Amino acid sequence: MFSRLIDHHCHGVSPANLDRAGLEALMSESHRPASPFFGSQFDKPLGLALRRHCAPVLGLEPMADAAEYAEQRQSLGADEVNRRFLRATGVSEMLIDTGHRRDDILGCAEMETLSGVPCPEVVRIEAVFESVVDADDPLTAFAEALHGRTANAVGLKSIVAYRAGFRIDQTRPLQSETRAALDRWRIMRDGDGPQRLEDPVLLMHALWTGLDLAAVRKLPIQLHVGFGDRDIAMPDCDPTHFTPFIAAAEDREVPVTLLHCYPFEREAAWLAEVYSNVFFDVGAVLNYTGPSAVRVLRDAMEMGMFSKQLYSSDAFGLAELHHLGRVQFEAALNKVLSGWIADGACTLRDADRIAEMIAWQNAARIYSL
Amino acid sequence: MFSRLIDHHCHGVSPANLDRAGLEALMSESHRPASPFFGSQFDKPLGLALRRHCAPVLGLEPMADAAEYAEQRQSLGADEVNRRFLRATGVSEMLIDTGHRRDDILGCAEMETLSGVPCPEVVRIEAVFESVVDADDPLTAFAEALHGRTANAVGLKSIVAYRAGFRIDQTRPLQSETRAALDRWRIMRDGDGPQRLEDPVLLMHALWTGLDLAAVRKLPIQLHVGFGDRDIAMPDCDPTHFTPFIAAAEDREVPVTLLHCYPFEREAAWLAEVYSNVFFDVGAVLNYTGPSAVRVLRDAMEMGMFSKQLYSSDAFGLAELHHLGRVQFEAALNKVLSGWIADGACTLRDADRIAEMIAWQNAARIYSL
Amino acid sequence: MFSRLIDHHCHGVSPANLDRAGLEALMSESHRPASPFFGSQFDKPLGLALRRHCAPVLGLEPMADAAEYAEQRQSLGADEVNRRFLRATGVSEMLIDTGHRRDDILGCAEMETLSGVPCPEVVRIEAVFESVVDADDPLTAFAEALHGRTANAVGLKSIVAYRAGFRIDQTRPLQSETRAALDRWRIMRDGDGPQRLEDPVLLMHALWTGLDLAAVRKLPIQLHVGFGDRDIAMPDCDPTHFTPFIAAAEDREVPVTLLHCYPFEREAAWLAEVYSNVFFDVGAVLNYTGPSAVRVLRDAMEMGMFSKQLYSSDAFGLAELHHLGRVQFEAALNKVLSGWIADGACTLRDADRIAEMIAWQNAARIYSL
Repeated sequence: MFSRLIDHHCHGVSPANLDRAGLEALMSESHRPASPFFGSQFDKPLGLALRRHCAPVLGLEPMADAAEYAEQRQSLGADEVNRRFLRATGVSEMLIDTGHRRDDILGCAEMETLSGVPCPEVVRIEAVFESVVDADDPLTAFAEALHGRTANAVGLKSIVAYRAGFRIDQTRPLQSETRAALDRWRIMRDGDGPQRLEDPVLLMHALWTGLDLAAVRKLPIQLHVGFGDRDIAMPDCDPTHFTPFIAAAEDREVPVTLLHCYPFEREAAWLAEVYSNVFFDVGAVLNYTGPSAVRVLRDAMEMGMFSKQLYSSDAFGLAELHHLGRVQFEAALNKVLSGWIADGACTLRDADRIAEMIAWQNAARIYSL
Repeated sequence: MFSRLIDHHCHGVSPANLDRAGLEALMSESHRPASPFFGSQFDKPLGLALRRHCAPVLGLEPMADAAEYAEQRQSLGADEVNRRFLRATGVSEMLIDTGHRRDDILGCAEMETLSGVPCPEVVRIEAVFESVVDADDPLTAFAEALHGRTANAVGLKSIVAYRAGFRIDQTRPLQSETRAALDRWRIMRDGDGPQRLEDPVLLMHALWTGLDLAAVRKLPIQLHVGFGDRDIAMPDCDPTHFTPFIAAAEDREVPVTLLHCYPFEREAAWLAEVYSNVFFDVGAVLNYTGPSAVRVLRDAMEMGMFSKQLYSSDAFGLAELHHLGRVQFEAALNKVLSGWIADGACTLRDADRIAEMIAWQNAARIYSL
Repeated sequence: MFSRLIDHHCHGVSPANLDRAGLEALMSESHRPASPFFGSQFDKPLGLALRRHCAPVLGLEPMADAAEYAEQRQSLGADEVNRRFLRATGVSEMLIDTGHRRDDILGCAEMETLSGVPCPEVVRIEAVFESVVDADDPLTAFAEALHGRTANAVGLKSIVAYRAGFRIDQTRPLQSETRAALDRWRIMRDGDGPQRLEDPVLLMHALWTGLDLAAVRKLPIQLHVGFGDRDIAMPDCDPTHFTPFIAAAEDREVPVTLLHCYPFEREAAWLAEVYSNVFFDVGAVLNYTGPSAVRVLRDAMEMGMFSKQLYSSDAFGLAELHHLGRVQFEAALNKVLSGWIADGACTLRDADRIAEMIAWQNAARIYSL
């Protein structure tokens, strides 16, 4: 359907030969899959979609049952499974966020080998900051590390919404404030405190440092939006709380791409209408909603500018999710656009233009691909 | 369609022989039906659904008009009307919250007689607390009363979201803090203050006491979510604000069931994905949305685990609402699942399993029915 | 389809002969259309709808392309274009908010001449306050000006949600508090501060003054809700935060009409269910969502009382938007109601009654038209 397809936000796949428990663990955002109340992760929309669209890639009938699927997957082995799905995906480029659980999943080079397509890197700002937080001069070390790590990167990513939400003071912290916050955080960390950077001052320092670099290097900044860690109050992840920072990025002509956005798709579409530098996708939500994915894409497209929407799978760990992301996106986009054509609401040519913009043209433009 | 159907959350019906005004008063959540601006309560989606599905049970044509309906209802008399609807409902068990306006509606025993099915009790925590608030030692009296009242109960319910919202400090109050809050509240109550318990400290004391008991007795806690009293700011009723308490319940393996959830169905589904002990329904919303009920159920099912969803009518006062709840649920579930089958998104066997899980298996498991 | 149609909230059209850039500037709520990242404003749902439904009014084929459309529009000239669209609209009355950019658009008298229908005025409270803010005694001057300006008006409007959001203290400020706030604001304004009234105390003084007048004159108060200026955090525009003021208006039997409401349609519908004086529309959203408008109206109608819903185009600047508003509303309402009829959920007579209520009867009643 598309002349080119850019997955502007995804992660590496696991090299492990997963058994059923390992497979189910990667089908969920939950941290406690082993509770007495959870049933199988196959008993949800994602499970239905995976059995339908992924089973045939492994040589099974569509809708093969969960046990059969898990068994076939394990008997084929991780390398064969990963290669099959990544080749079946049919995307032209995958932009890979390397900042989450990097010891468990493959990096860019290995993803390129498996998929046969370019897999440029997106650098997660907080992960770089955390890696130098115990240096003698952490702020200088961070600026240097970020500079070095992004030499060949195509974008930056922030997960500030996971850590502190968007309802925080977004003014640039003074160096002295940042140093004080860092001292405080280290004392707490060495006691009982959080091991990861959650302090809003530190997070905003990291983000502003990233913005400086993004402006010079012409890199977009990806912002995780909405659903994510289970201890965040969802309203704090509404991206309309982050307009001071978004406006600062607009002044520097730095694109900000809002990721998955659930349940704030409409807020994201609205921001993309009023801030010239805001772009958005619905990412992993198309996978997680399985049979209902078209509802999500329809909401994203109901008001948003076609020049501001992007495609991503947001796949993590399972190569199935890279493949499924594309299948779900293509099917949902087909349903939305064919419905519009049937209603007389757009022409065939319009529909084709819209599909090409969202599938790759918008991403190619802002990521300079 | 179902081999069994558990209405895990509803209330008693009115024994009064209602005239049209009385009937309309129970068709609304509003406290001021007699305003100059309101039209008839029949002029909304619930009114359309009631005329359609309830008129035939009273021997009228579907879509009989409001005047005819009200007249026929009154001429049959309350007992006959209640019996007809509760028998027509076809549910296997009704779990009855007895804590709201209990002088106006029938209790569990009378509901069992009318319906012919088991009607176990769900005890409303705040109602028990309010009943002992003037005892010499209210905290001890409350613990004892809750213990006694739940001897044969199948669950507890809290309406903290109605009273203070979910955006409150959820740490367990010290006994001294609770006592101080109680003294403050009584002084205010005896002046011009609120007559009902709205103080967050008192509400959280009640909830933690309920949690202790629920953990020992293996009872779920039902949480009212979303729309309700008219003076609550809706964003404060977002259940993602209540994750500290939900996590505490998870640690004790106490199921938390989120009720109706409008307009936070997607947040509820998400919590059920990431907290093993969270279950949810869309309850009364299927009645209130009448012809559009399928939209609501589709949203609830778009991402949520099938093992975490429940059925309830949340009917109060009108036996029509018990009957209509089941009709609306069955029709909406049929539409969602038959659509998925037609699309190839699930098999007939999958659809049947999903329907049985939501209709009764999930409830039977957590309520030990 | 309707025996009468009242557009209860719109603005004047531009008398300028717009070129393509001028045309596109009025197709957006954005303040920075000239950014490097924005594409054409035609590449969004509104653009598709405009090409489809407005091109024929200018003598072009449906779905004429953007360049052709802009050229034809300019060659016909502003007066001819405006007249054609306003005559094609087929509304019976247009209620015109004259408080926004009044130097750029036509007033009530000119709109009446162009459209051939009555165009009574809705007076924007904040605009009147701003016009007298440098008077010797601004509070008295404001009360007098508002009294004078509304001699022939049919309603008042407030944009408090744009300026400060709804999450503000809504108690009536004392005169002394208002005077102090005014002094503070003037000092700041004469420095670097905001030129427009954004202070919550001043805004609430203006609104309470408006409420006094509305109660005496039996005028409704329109409240802008939801999407609007780009620097407002969307959650602060949730109308459920404004229930203290809404309740005060209810006590005085003053209708409050919630405008467009995106993305709070469901909250608006809920408020209209529990507050007797709350009415609502989805306004400009039907235009901005183009091919997906039916989703918006379906959500508005899914729970709301039919006696509380209104029609508006919220058109500003472009006569196209007045015309398109009606086309979109009629088509969407047709789809919702014909779907209900086909499902057996309402009768033909019910559907007709519902359409007439929303199209004009509710507005005629509260605006005394």
